[in-house]
Amino acid sequence: MRDQRNSSIRIKKRARGREAHPKRDGSPVLYGWHTVKAALENPQRRIRRLFATENAARRLAEEGVPLRAELELVRPEMIARRLSPDAVHNGLLAEADPLPSLELDEIEAGDLMLVLDQITDPHNVGAILRTAAAFDVAAVVTTARHSPQASGVLAKSASGALEYVPLITVQNLARGIEQLRERGFLVIGLDSSGEDDLAGAAVRTPLALILGAEGKGLRQLTRASCDCLARLDLPGRIKSLNVSNAAALALYIARKRLAESARS
Amino acid sequence: MRDQRNSSIRIKKRARGREAHPKRDGSPVLYGWHTVKAALENPQRRIRRLFATENAARRLAEEGVPLRAELELVRPEMIARRLSPDAVHNGLLAEADPLPSLELDEIEAGDLMLVLDQITDPHNVGAILRTAAAFDVAAVVTTARHSPQASGVLAKSASGALEYVPLITVQNLARGIEQLRERGFLVIGLDSSGEDDLAGAAVRTPLALILGAEGKGLRQLTRASCDCLARLDLPGRIKSLNVSNAAALALYIARKRLAESARS
Repeated sequence: MRDQRNSSIRIKKRARGREAHPKRDGSPVLYGWHTVKAALENPQRRIRRLFATENAARRLAEEGVPLRAELELVRPEMIARRLSPDAVHNGLLAEADPLPSLELDEIEAGDLMLVLDQITDPHNVGAILRTAAAFDVAAVVTTARHSPQASGVLAKSASGALEYVPLITVQNLARGIEQLRERGFLVIGLDSSGEDDLAGAAVRTPLALILGAEGKGLRQLTRASCDCLARLDLPGRIKSLNVSNAAALALYIARKRLAESARS
Repeated sequence: MRDQRNSSIRIKKRARGREAHPKRDGSPVLYGWHTVKAALENPQRRIRRLFATENAARRLAEEGVPLRAELELVRPEMIARRLSPDAVHNGLLAEADPLPSLELDEIEAGDLMLVLDQITDPHNVGAILRTAAAFDVAAVVTTARHSPQASGVLAKSASGALEYVPLITVQNLARGIEQLRERGFLVIGLDSSGEDDLAGAAVRTPLALILGAEGKGLRQLTRASCDCLARLDLPGRIKSLNVSNAAALALYIARKRLAESARS
């Protein structure tokens, strides 16, 4: 990690009129305070270019965030121009390489894992990654098809969690679940037809929870790959939640149940 | 409710080339299966025009949904053209009037209420309304300023919940909270600086939970209006959640605690 007291030396002024153009090769464009800060603090993340407003540059220096690329000072409009109109960028944008992709058998198992069966919305997957980091989940597993790329929108919704929780992509989810079972995981699928409420289900570590897309739910083959299916009981008139809200509840309940079973 | 067996009689074919244009007077354009179905089933909601694809029209008839406006058959592209590119409309769009606005003292109190302090993102407020309906919340209170309108995006994210849970707008949130206290509510603000974890806080009915915007949290005056502040303890590296995820957790924990305190 470089000495932050020298960071101002490495700031160069952007030439007037030179604009940041969107990258077209699929590399993520990261923006927003938490997202870019976490990326700069992650030695695994290669940063190609870093754009910041004066305020954001000052804040990076004050908080001792390592600048792992030459900081290019820009006006806020130059960042806004590269993003959708409602994007909140906090004066920070980084062009980065995707994180090294990991295989399911390369990650440390931990005690809790989350598996997403074809959840396509990047805002939802980002929010789920963030909540997974909050509940100390070892990894989030997604399908290669019908899942969002680790784009800027996903990274922003994840609020830095993309740097903390490995996002593993598998070609065949049923095979991936089988691999988890071979490693000793208890695999519980969340499904409204589940026989038990998750809050009353028998759990143990290591535990993998599987969530399906809203509306479609778990696919038949995914469902058949689970050790059991559990539902989330809801007392009100609406019986299904936004999928990231469902993930938050499921992770909270699972952590609570695991703590209770460790005590007994 | 009209006899659904006659609903096909009231379907008229849209003239070719006649397109649906977005309304510019602020009336919500509702779209998506759950959202439009719930609106059609809500006698309080005035529907001005109803557009459906053939498939969606058939499904409405099959499920006996009351058609409270003349159904205009359209092709999916005609609906898509009125919405943002990523909008999932399920072949249904309705032009509706806003719901009658209610004052805080007009609603039935119920045992649990949710208050939002300047949460601006319509996706988040929609997801929160949906989760509030799932946890049988009596009403969601928002500020008149710095809150989203009950737009199509909010209604879609709410997945019908806009028809089930009154969304009350107040000019002055501190005054609104005071009104709740006068009606006997225990008012708990969710705040990372809270002295107790919500899961261990003393609760009773009627209970109002207050959530602030991500990043900013509760405003000073809101904080001072609460009976107490409680935090959501999270075991992982990230210590704050997407606000709708935080709402889901807070409502789950509150419902659980209220049930426990009713038993003891």
